[in-house]
Amino acid sequence: MDEREGQIDLGAQELAHAPLVATRVIPVEPPSLRDNTALAERLARAVSRDLGLTQVHVPLSVAGGLSDLGFGANDRFQVAVSKGTDTGRIVSVAPPGDRAAGYGLAVDVGSTTLVLALVDLERPCVIDRFSLTNPQMAHGADILTRAHFAERPGGLETLTRELREAINRGLAVICERQALEPGQLVAGAVAGNTAMTHFLLGLSLRTLIREPYIPVVNRPEGLTAGRLGLNLAPEAPVLVMPNKGAYLGGDLMAGVVVSGMARSDGLGLLVDVGTNAEVVLGQRDWLVGAAGAAGPALEGGVVRMGMIAGPGAIDRVRIDRETKTIKYRTIEDRPPKGICGSGLIDLFAEMFLSGLLDFQGKLTIPPGHPRRLETDDGPAFIVVTGAETENGEPILLSEIEVDLLTRSKAGMYTIISTVVQSVGLTVDQIDRFFVAGTFGQYIDPRMAVAVGMVPDLPLDRFVSLGNSSLQGAILTLISSDARSEVSEIWQKMTYLEMNVNQDLMNRFSAARFLPHTNRNRFPSVGTTIA
Amino acid sequence: MDEREGQIDLGAQELAHAPLVATRVIPVEPPSLRDNTALAERLARAVSRDLGLTQVHVPLSVAGGLSDLGFGANDRFQVAVSKGTDTGRIVSVAPPGDRAAGYGLAVDVGSTTLVLALVDLERPCVIDRFSLTNPQMAHGADILTRAHFAERPGGLETLTRELREAINRGLAVICERQALEPGQLVAGAVAGNTAMTHFLLGLSLRTLIREPYIPVVNRPEGLTAGRLGLNLAPEAPVLVMPNKGAYLGGDLMAGVVVSGMARSDGLGLLVDVGTNAEVVLGQRDWLVGAAGAAGPALEGGVVRMGMIAGPGAIDRVRIDRETKTIKYRTIEDRPPKGICGSGLIDLFAEMFLSGLLDFQGKLTIPPGHPRRLETDDGPAFIVVTGAETENGEPILLSEIEVDLLTRSKAGMYTIISTVVQSVGLTVDQIDRFFVAGTFGQYIDPRMAVAVGMVPDLPLDRFVSLGNSSLQGAILTLISSDARSEVSEIWQKMTYLEMNVNQDLMNRFSAARFLPHTNRNRFPSVGTTIA
Repeated sequence: MDEREGQIDLGAQELAHAPLVATRVIPVEPPSLRDNTALAERLARAVSRDLGLTQVHVPLSVAGGLSDLGFGANDRFQVAVSKGTDTGRIVSVAPPGDRAAGYGLAVDVGSTTLVLALVDLERPCVIDRFSLTNPQMAHGADILTRAHFAERPGGLETLTRELREAINRGLAVICERQALEPGQLVAGAVAGNTAMTHFLLGLSLRTLIREPYIPVVNRPEGLTAGRLGLNLAPEAPVLVMPNKGAYLGGDLMAGVVVSGMARSDGLGLLVDVGTNAEVVLGQRDWLVGAAGAAGPALEGGVVRMGMIAGPGAIDRVRIDRETKTIKYRTIEDRPPKGICGSGLIDLFAEMFLSGLLDFQGKLTIPPGHPRRLETDDGPAFIVVTGAETENGEPILLSEIEVDLLTRSKAGMYTIISTVVQSVGLTVDQIDRFFVAGTFGQYIDPRMAVAVGMVPDLPLDRFVSLGNSSLQGAILTLISSDARSEVSEIWQKMTYLEMNVNQDLMNRFSAARFLPHTNRNRFPSVGTTIA
Repeated sequence: MDEREGQIDLGAQELAHAPLVATRVIPVEPPSLRDNTALAERLARAVSRDLGLTQVHVPLSVAGGLSDLGFGANDRFQVAVSKGTDTGRIVSVAPPGDRAAGYGLAVDVGSTTLVLALVDLERPCVIDRFSLTNPQMAHGADILTRAHFAERPGGLETLTRELREAINRGLAVICERQALEPGQLVAGAVAGNTAMTHFLLGLSLRTLIREPYIPVVNRPEGLTAGRLGLNLAPEAPVLVMPNKGAYLGGDLMAGVVVSGMARSDGLGLLVDVGTNAEVVLGQRDWLVGAAGAAGPALEGGVVRMGMIAGPGAIDRVRIDRETKTIKYRTIEDRPPKGICGSGLIDLFAEMFLSGLLDFQGKLTIPPGHPRRLETDDGPAFIVVTGAETENGEPILLSEIEVDLLTRSKAGMYTIISTVVQSVGLTVDQIDRFFVAGTFGQYIDPRMAVAVGMVPDLPLDRFVSLGNSSLQGAILTLISSDARSEVSEIWQKMTYLEMNVNQDLMNRFSAARFLPHTNRNRFPSVGTTIA
């Protein structure tokens, strides 16, 4: 799906346009002594007729505003209706105005960043976007720290409130820019991992973080903005992408929808690299999902010089095969401060490909080499000398950190190969390899292959989905096909429990070499990368 | 229906027992690594199986409590489920306890008095009852004054809040007495007139009190205790008896259910004498409803010596036909302070029957008679001399007040005869004449006939329903037949608009004599009443 602002091409995905909430201007008969039908039932009757519904519900909060609407003076109203198969629920009603469109809000609830998109449900298109930091970061960068914070008295309430307030702040910014009132938004859709979804809903993570790792809710339903404390129209339905388990979250479900893999005959594999590696394998008829620890080191959050992708972060690294000369690029061309996730994978791969690391992840350059430094943590490679960095300190990558990276990539490869093997297939049968998430978007697949993190597939099989969590939420706002698909995906998907058995450990051990113990699995590695 | 505390005999009414919310102890599989289904879906699955439902919804507020319930340790839970045809909604869940029953609250929301009944939904029976004054009385005894108060800034919010708080206070008293927590109540049902229903729901009366007198809502649906600010379990469904118009309220619908007239082949007429006279005529196949001004003077709220039925109120009057000696009874045998509604109708009738009033409502005793007093408002009858009253002042009934009473009874008779005539029938075809409401309960039908307030039917056709508003609410709590019937009654009932035309005025004028211009319509009047 096109990630840019503007028109959304549903046709390319073969998804019909049918927004979650339909906005219509409809005629309503003025009250009279002859017909004393109440205002709410009068409105419901008009909507039933207009939309061909058998039953239309008027929620109390909508009914509360009816007597101020001038039913005698007006005979047409703009009504937003949340439609079921043959029933409807009125979300809002107003005298017909200039902007007769319906608006919706899609939110990617990331553990680090919240991304909001204002969607015109009727055209349909994305009108505006806004990102802000998840305020929960103040209570811990990782989910587990927040989950423990949530168990203090008032902790969960704080995390939930801060999250909802942040979304409302972002909504206010967008509305200000677009000269809208938040209450004019009549539909919402949210996608996030299982923990973030629980925080948003105000649900305890107690059972989620302890064996046997059980969410409170898999498929949150029947939610409204009012109930979630979001400043859209109070009766606006809010879809929350379902999760399949503690580590298979709504963000991944969104990715499956955006990838289209569940509508395809070809075999697709979707990977989301975050704190965990989440993997879905399948096609039209079946889906298998699994998750396991894999991500942190890869995301740049664990190595000492790792940093998020901001100004001064090294995001690209190339090392000359002969001279071992290092070329790097930083974001906004600032003096380097650290290395972000994609830069780290580049570095890791290039060091191996240029022979600076052996297949066990050990430095090949001897003590005393100008690029080698002995530190308290053992030998390290000098990626950038202090002369070039912002603060005068060199940027290093230690052997210990290489080992962390190796374990992470081995974890990822092990999960992928385990899932593929569980259904009796081999990795080369994967037709499309989808990489979900903002981090994944910047990884060069050639580099990921070089270190043996992902299978050695032809490059044209790799597809980066970008922020598929947000895109999936947007799709559910505007397409009933997408909404049905979420439900089908959820039902179709088998959760593969990653039992830590000897077989898995063997696979993991074999993957702890660069690129792998079995070089035959990575025939392309060693070929020149420009 | 039996009004006393205790068992409710649904069989006598041919209504099946099926409570609004079913309470069951059901087995729930403990979570495991093998089955990571979320707590909410796990519970929903267990309930679906146990109750044979295709879909069970777990509201967010119920889900929020699940992780504290000890799903690992317990494998049985007490679940309250609000059931639709083949779907359900979980109202509450708890570890199985001693009192495994489900409780509900029925409320008669009267404009003067609120009456609450605690109902055991399973047995079914009424466990306790409590009445309290409607706190809105402080803002005006009549609805119109309150409706105007509601239009001040914050006025409606105040009236709504006070009403809800009063119900919660009553609920707290009952729960204290019965050693229950309000949150253990899993279902609610409310009946009141249209205005009181609007106040309870927080809906404006603006369109209700102005031509063409349109309610905001006829059939409030999908309400929960949490939404209404009532302290039952937040997800407890609360049924609100529908209204058919501004003056045909939910209290009357409740009366129709309790009377059973909509299940009968015989012709029934239901009358509720309150601020207005509300009338429903019909039988199994059809119902006609109408309302009009008739009540205030009859209720004792308009005459100077009128009072509510409390200690010291004259509630019974007999006058010797020969000696004109007056015998009266007071509530609790206290010295008389005033006259309540039923006493007033007794007095009115007895004065006519003993010849103290002529057929035009004029005093027949001449000036100077010891029972006659000339006041600033004209001649008055001395009902009780000052020597006998509590405060030493005589209790009087003036000719002007007799005229008010006459207008009121004429209004009532006119509405009844108009409704009967509208369907081409005559009053003597009425098989059962139901009198709804607490006030009606104490009226002696012979007296009401004597003054021509109600048709001259054989006494055994009169049936007093007592507080049928409360009884109807109780029935909907415990019987799905009753719930269906409310819906059928609402759909079946035709609202007869009382156009003030010449024909109606003629009928009203003819009824402004005692008992009526046409004495043939009241053949029994004049016979001795003991």
